[in-house]
Amino acid sequence: MQRALSVHRMDGNRSTFPEWYQAVVREAEMAEPSPVRGSMVIKPWGYGIWEQIQKELDRRIKETGHENCYFPLFIPLSFIAKEAQHVEGFAKEMAVVTHHRLKMIDGKLKPDPEAELEEPLIVRPTSETIIGDAFSRWIKSHRDLPLLINQWANVVRWEMRTRMFLRTAEFLWQEGHTAHADAQDAMAETFRILELYRDFAESTLAIPVIAGEKSENERFPGAENTYSIEAMMQDGKALQAGTSHYLGVHFAEAQNIRFQNEAGEHVLCHTTSWGVSTRLIGGVVMTHGDDDGLRLPPAIAPRQIVIVPMLRNKPEDADVLGYCQALATALGAQSAFNDRIRVLCDTRDVKSADKRWNWVRRGAPLIVEIGPRDVAGGQVTFMRRDKLRDGDKVRSASMARDQFVAEAPLILTDIQVRLYEEARTRLDSNIRTDIKSLGELKEYFGAATDEDEAAEFKGWARVPWSNPKGPALDEIEKQLKQLKLSIRNAPLDQPKGALGSCIFTGANATQEILIARAY
Amino acid sequence: MQRALSVHRMDGNRSTFPEWYQAVVREAEMAEPSPVRGSMVIKPWGYGIWEQIQKELDRRIKETGHENCYFPLFIPLSFIAKEAQHVEGFAKEMAVVTHHRLKMIDGKLKPDPEAELEEPLIVRPTSETIIGDAFSRWIKSHRDLPLLINQWANVVRWEMRTRMFLRTAEFLWQEGHTAHADAQDAMAETFRILELYRDFAESTLAIPVIAGEKSENERFPGAENTYSIEAMMQDGKALQAGTSHYLGVHFAEAQNIRFQNEAGEHVLCHTTSWGVSTRLIGGVVMTHGDDDGLRLPPAIAPRQIVIVPMLRNKPEDADVLGYCQALATALGAQSAFNDRIRVLCDTRDVKSADKRWNWVRRGAPLIVEIGPRDVAGGQVTFMRRDKLRDGDKVRSASMARDQFVAEAPLILTDIQVRLYEEARTRLDSNIRTDIKSLGELKEYFGAATDEDEAAEFKGWARVPWSNPKGPALDEIEKQLKQLKLSIRNAPLDQPKGALGSCIFTGANATQEILIARAY
Repeated sequence: MQRALSVHRMDGNRSTFPEWYQAVVREAEMAEPSPVRGSMVIKPWGYGIWEQIQKELDRRIKETGHENCYFPLFIPLSFIAKEAQHVEGFAKEMAVVTHHRLKMIDGKLKPDPEAELEEPLIVRPTSETIIGDAFSRWIKSHRDLPLLINQWANVVRWEMRTRMFLRTAEFLWQEGHTAHADAQDAMAETFRILELYRDFAESTLAIPVIAGEKSENERFPGAENTYSIEAMMQDGKALQAGTSHYLGVHFAEAQNIRFQNEAGEHVLCHTTSWGVSTRLIGGVVMTHGDDDGLRLPPAIAPRQIVIVPMLRNKPEDADVLGYCQALATALGAQSAFNDRIRVLCDTRDVKSADKRWNWVRRGAPLIVEIGPRDVAGGQVTFMRRDKLRDGDKVRSASMARDQFVAEAPLILTDIQVRLYEEARTRLDSNIRTDIKSLGELKEYFGAATDEDEAAEFKGWARVPWSNPKGPALDEIEKQLKQLKLSIRNAPLDQPKGALGSCIFTGANATQEILIARAY
Repeated sequence: MQRALSVHRMDGNRSTFPEWYQAVVREAEMAEPSPVRGSMVIKPWGYGIWEQIQKELDRRIKETGHENCYFPLFIPLSFIAKEAQHVEGFAKEMAVVTHHRLKMIDGKLKPDPEAELEEPLIVRPTSETIIGDAFSRWIKSHRDLPLLINQWANVVRWEMRTRMFLRTAEFLWQEGHTAHADAQDAMAETFRILELYRDFAESTLAIPVIAGEKSENERFPGAENTYSIEAMMQDGKALQAGTSHYLGVHFAEAQNIRFQNEAGEHVLCHTTSWGVSTRLIGGVVMTHGDDDGLRLPPAIAPRQIVIVPMLRNKPEDADVLGYCQALATALGAQSAFNDRIRVLCDTRDVKSADKRWNWVRRGAPLIVEIGPRDVAGGQVTFMRRDKLRDGDKVRSASMARDQFVAEAPLILTDIQVRLYEEARTRLDSNIRTDIKSLGELKEYFGAATDEDEAAEFKGWARVPWSNPKGPALDEIEKQLKQLKLSIRNAPLDQPKGALGSCIFTGANATQEILIARAY
């Protein structure tokens, strides 16, 4: 059977999911490793997906009253040092700029020792400190609040083990930073954004997620509360797809962000921060991809419909091309997902069959192939990428041209919905709620050797939890780590009534938490 | 007379243009200095202008067949060293990353000596080397050409003297990089982009420019030919607003970018690169600003129409607000410049008069003020920012509401055209073409003391030029530098027929060049 992709998700009984992931990213021409350790090159198809994500997310962020700014890439070491004093879990792996000049020394280009910076600069791993510094200047009165800012930027976090889109030293993201008059308003913002992320993931990326609160040990350093959305990948692992933090007054204290309230007092602001990144693209691959490559939700496909003219170096080629171009124009005048349909007529000098498989690998939602017979019959022959095959065979359908043009928006919407429902079913049917003890948890997930991990699909467990703190929590997370498991979050949507006993402490549970293997 | 701005362009007979520029940027809330040396914070209004510039330029870049990618921020030192060998004018002022970890040492946070990078990384000043490396992998056959790539990114060039938007260590830009089968195709691309920049500057930014070729000494290091667009600011100085380079095979040689031609030979590609940056925003300020602040061409105004409800804490406030919001909705349904009109109803808890002057300073093209009388009369009272005053008085007009809604697109277009024409007249009437000798040039521009510079408006000179090379050119540029002058470019649009004698060499001129003071 011909497949578009060189590696599949399973090789017999063995999971080859990680290799498959790399193959999709490579063969769909989304990204590639760069000669710069830990960094990747995002190629046009991958970047095109990011542009669609940006466009829709930016619209939603602005619609909720946030404005975009741009803050410096470099952060003075002293800013980080100030934070480090306040923050115990301070991460120290960052890129440090120490010189501002190169010089030929003994025939070799080197950092010029005479151009050493008085104060080293850090390449931003996140921008709370530098944005907080601006907030301390911008905010004077209660009339300046809430201050709602967002930034689209690149950030750098030194990583030893990298995986394209999922974990790279440099990545692209948006980071929101807001300041509020009180805790209540800041918490409302934290939840507003968490809900914005949830809805965006589900309706735009077609990735169902569970929103909830991270455990005390998994909070962003300096945060009072950290919330996340968690998605289930096709190998059962969880992907943290976005976070929203209520920072209390910690950062306001460190940066002296104060406002004069109506009583005339200068009081500390309550701040939040929140972000999603190019990691979402990895989530799209691992949620929707199949053994033929990527399948893109139409809402974020850089090209929603690709038309391949079946040319044979014959006189009728001109008719076929003309028909295709007119079809592209007609489809491009239609709208789906509140925007014009994005159509490409692929006229590259490449064999038609190669074009087909290229667009299958890249996950274009609708692939149209037009030959002389379609032109003669005034029809369109097309493949839906979401249901490409009937058994092993590639499935294609024909439709009268005008009907296809009229129905294209509906078909695209249907593909979006079907991809979501497929993923929703996977999530809903793979969360075990019957695990009552640590022993049963171990039994389900098995020992954490690499072979076991690769052997069998495991979902998540949703278990009663008594919310232990401090050393008790540390001990539980250590046990989980031995099983390569972690607490993902405590879902916002909690059952009413008695929850039974915590599977770790035996005490009365106060909530349920999700446990899973994770990226 | 009430002015929106604290500093004007002239103080009596003395030019206060530089102070005025800083005042506009600060008081229109476009940007501010940051605590990071050489970097600025771009505030919402300034970033909003950049977003409009990006949107329109990105559309044009894509329309001409280019695709967006993203390449790493860091460039290995060895890549720069390879370039440095090939490039004489190699600039060495760059930010160098030498460590990947911070560590508390004797109670102070410092770069960890044990985390020194084996090979330092350079923060990209431009991306020819790292993109060329990718091109060498991506290009195999003539079928892969032309390869047309663009990137929106931040870059860093260490600068000792910075000025917001015009010269900062970090700035935002787009950089295009393309590879072609031969010189002819690469040159065609170089000119296509130069023309794209010219048309974008004139029709979108309303900034008239002169496109031409830079002199040999002003070329991008490694380029065969560098072309620029040059704009005249209100102080007469030139601003280089965009560049397009034909790089020949220099970068292809250094990065080994080759393709197999139809004869089966592996030959070098011809490459180009081109870019414009946030510097354009500085150009908009210095072209269109007046003593009341910024005046924005409607095509790039983040808000094209701002509605200020004149509220007085009286019962009729509700009617005024409702009227304003309905007006905003009606205007927002209209289109101008191929997009929906961007309208804001400013309901902030601020005095109406303060709002008016705030939007005047920020340069909103149309400011509408609605009071109970407008509501009663079903009319709209508005100010055009392009002709704000009649003598010293602020000029406002009234119009029936429905007529205003219908005519708003026309009024915005008229403002765009008038701003362009005003700047066009300034450019056209301030280029002297009657200067015949170095002596006359000196006489016109005067000695280059700071006082003289500030004293009087000077335009440009367009003079005959025999195109001397090498030491002769060096000597001329040295003389010009003493007068604080430089050769801007040799306009593409050259007169036909005899040009007379070169004002520097006395030899027969082969072309005309522009000479000016410059940013």
